[in-house]
Amino acid sequence: MDWETLLAPYKQAVDELKVKFRGIREQFQKTTKQSPIEFVTGRVKPINSILNKAWQKNIPFEKIEEEIQDIAGLRIMCQFTDDIKKVTDMLRNRKDFEIVEERDYITNKKPSGYRSYHLVIRYPVQTLEGEKPLLAEVQIRTLAMNFWATIEHSLNYKYQGQIPKDIQLRLQRAAEAASRLDEEMAEIRGEVQEAQIVFSERTDDGKGSSPTT
Amino acid sequence: MDWETLLAPYKQAVDELKVKFRGIREQFQKTTKQSPIEFVTGRVKPINSILNKAWQKNIPFEKIEEEIQDIAGLRIMCQFTDDIKKVTDMLRNRKDFEIVEERDYITNKKPSGYRSYHLVIRYPVQTLEGEKPLLAEVQIRTLAMNFWATIEHSLNYKYQGQIPKDIQLRLQRAAEAASRLDEEMAEIRGEVQEAQIVFSERTDDGKGSSPTT
Amino acid sequence: MDWETLLAPYKQAVDELKVKFRGIREQFQKTTKQSPIEFVTGRVKPINSILNKAWQKNIPFEKIEEEIQDIAGLRIMCQFTDDIKKVTDMLRNRKDFEIVEERDYITNKKPSGYRSYHLVIRYPVQTLEGEKPLLAEVQIRTLAMNFWATIEHSLNYKYQGQIPKDIQLRLQRAAEAASRLDEEMAEIRGEVQEAQIVFSERTDDGKGSSPTT
Amino acid sequence: MDWETLLAPYKQAVDELKVKFRGIREQFQKTTKQSPIEFVTGRVKPINSILNKAWQKNIPFEKIEEEIQDIAGLRIMCQFTDDIKKVTDMLRNRKDFEIVEERDYITNKKPSGYRSYHLVIRYPVQTLEGEKPLLAEVQIRTLAMNFWATIEHSLNYKYQGQIPKDIQLRLQRAAEAASRLDEEMAEIRGEVQEAQIVFSERTDDGKGSSPTT
Repeated sequence: MDWETLLAPYKQAVDELKVKFRGIREQFQKTTKQSPIEFVTGRVKPINSILNKAWQKNIPFEKIEEEIQDIAGLRIMCQFTDDIKKVTDMLRNRKDFEIVEERDYITNKKPSGYRSYHLVIRYPVQTLEGEKPLLAEVQIRTLAMNFWATIEHSLNYKYQGQIPKDIQLRLQRAAEAASRLDEEMAEIRGEVQEAQIVFSERTDDGKGSSPTT
Repeated sequence: MDWETLLAPYKQAVDELKVKFRGIREQFQKTTKQSPIEFVTGRVKPINSILNKAWQKNIPFEKIEEEIQDIAGLRIMCQFTDDIKKVTDMLRNRKDFEIVEERDYITNKKPSGYRSYHLVIRYPVQTLEGEKPLLAEVQIRTLAMNFWATIEHSLNYKYQGQIPKDIQLRLQRAAEAASRLDEEMAEIRGEVQEAQIVFSERTDDGKGSSPTT
Repeated sequence: MDWETLLAPYKQAVDELKVKFRGIREQFQKTTKQSPIEFVTGRVKPINSILNKAWQKNIPFEKIEEEIQDIAGLRIMCQFTDDIKKVTDMLRNRKDFEIVEERDYITNKKPSGYRSYHLVIRYPVQTLEGEKPLLAEVQIRTLAMNFWATIEHSLNYKYQGQIPKDIQLRLQRAAEAASRLDEEMAEIRGEVQEAQIVFSERTDDGKGSSPTT
Repeated sequence: MDWETLLAPYKQAVDELKVKFRGIREQFQKTTKQSPIEFVTGRVKPINSILNKAWQKNIPFEKIEEEIQDIAGLRIMCQFTDDIKKVTDMLRNRKDFEIVEERDYITNKKPSGYRSYHLVIRYPVQTLEGEKPLLAEVQIRTLAMNFWATIEHSLNYKYQGQIPKDIQLRLQRAAEAASRLDEEMAEIRGEVQEAQIVFSERTDDGKGSSPTT
């Protein structure tokens, strides 16, 4: 089997799941005027990244599909940390795939500073040869977590996994700044929700202010 | 329930099925270098068309989803008439929806000249309130059939369903021209396939001609 | 210069022109409720097709961009033959590119049966190194012309430019069937337009029929 | 003139500029393997936002197109603060629009904490009635600036422009956290670039480490 044939159903899975997760966002916006999902991205892991992982972890070619769980990768970005739980709950309720593993790198962040919630799902793709269930990884994170992770990823790539100590320290300081941003946002979120209640009550009293934006 | 809420899962179904059917096309092109599917379109039936149909057929609002089967509509275009069967067979093998009805307007064309193969499927959409199975209509046709049907549809729209006799006659002549085109194409298709065998045999003998296109 | 660097601005031109031509379609539909443009496609010529053409026509690498005018290719499909003129007129009025050549294979169809209207345009693309004007070919055709041309293209590809005599004859018969379809459609078009006038007059008299579609 | 007719060319401008700015991103990635542009979004201002602005600023209908400069709005997101200047320089070099105004809310952040670089451009759109130059606003910001601005926008919307004092204070703390994140990122960026030089020198000495990611 060549790479193109191997990866084709993964590409299909990524395309389908992107449409499905973006659909969740639209449904939320229509019903509640706000969505826990900011945006959704997806990709098939590049061949040389697959090879590199297989080589480091000693995975033979015929085990790649079982052992490398992120060949199909989806990412869901949220505004607030609390939204991550809301999204995860909703994914658990779907019947078009099965969750086979969960990894909570938010409660237990990685030593590097990495924070994110990972789900591994088994998703059935219809191929010309019949139904093929395959694994896909869904990462759910805030915009700040994503921002930091993108930087860390490119540094890792540049330093080939061996980021110098002093840069590791700076990366950790950046991770703390990202965390702080999420915390400040979480505080505002509470305010917003409390304030909304006050505001709607006031409006009922006929004291609502006129639009000035 | 408002229209937007009613139609949202249908829009989602159309988006998902478009990605799925376009994926079939890509799979064919990768494996056999040609595809029975030329292109795929999809649409949600406009509200006033739904209303018009409900009104004419005396369908109450609460029965709309059961009785109007083409709220979600997909269309698959093929180059050759024979490809339609190939596509239909493949749709029957999928496990992500169930076929609830088939209408063969190719073997039995409509009096107007309309030719097309219709499938009504039941497709499950994941919504915020859980899984919702809904009906969708898949029309499979050649490019020539589609071309003619597009014209007929706009004439029907313009004449509000009562196309004058003389124009009906001309439409039928156009339908015959479209049929003729499909037949001529079918003949060429046979030639192509026979010729391909001859050609590949010759090539094995080392007598393949050099590219001159 | 490598191929990727050479082709990048052509890809950009194709992406921009697709959005521009599709925008024309939307403008028409909003203002006149119908459009002379059915749909628009675009592609960058595959590298081996460029090489093949360069090799046959003896074009050195440094002349490729001048001499091969369809590296960037756009195709505009129309329902009726008359629409082609309407589209061409409109393209002549645009100020975002210059037309450098026109080839009318409709008035003068090719011996093979090929019909289409070709424009070669010079379109400026903004690159990181400044503005770069480049050539692109725009093909304007009816759906029937396009249908036939697609078949001919794949036969040409399969027979490497040397389609056997008997298949050439069948191809010509198919070309005639496609032409016939365009003529039948043209007749209906006249009817539709006349009828529309009659209809709108009647409606003014309050004799408009109720919708029955 | 109705709204749809008024806004159609703005929608077209947004579509074209999105393709153009996304094209810049691709060009960078192909040539330098990294891009100062992370992603690009665009929107046409909703009608009620236009009305609200016109009403507050006392702008008559016929002056809307001149006085409201962000009917067409584009947003370019960067990873690093320094990238904003790089992107702005590049936009100044383009010949497909003219920059009519620049507002630097990064050097001079707004009292609310808002940071962003704004360009107002005059961009020519080809319409069925000829070329129409129109104004569009391009906002260039880092991901952290964008994140904060999105939150502020929704708070402003909810409080109709009169955010309570205590929430304003919290918003400012969040703005500082976002600023801090950008600063930490800027530091890392320097490290990365210095380190890259060191790394490439070492590699020349044959001391490059093997991939371990």
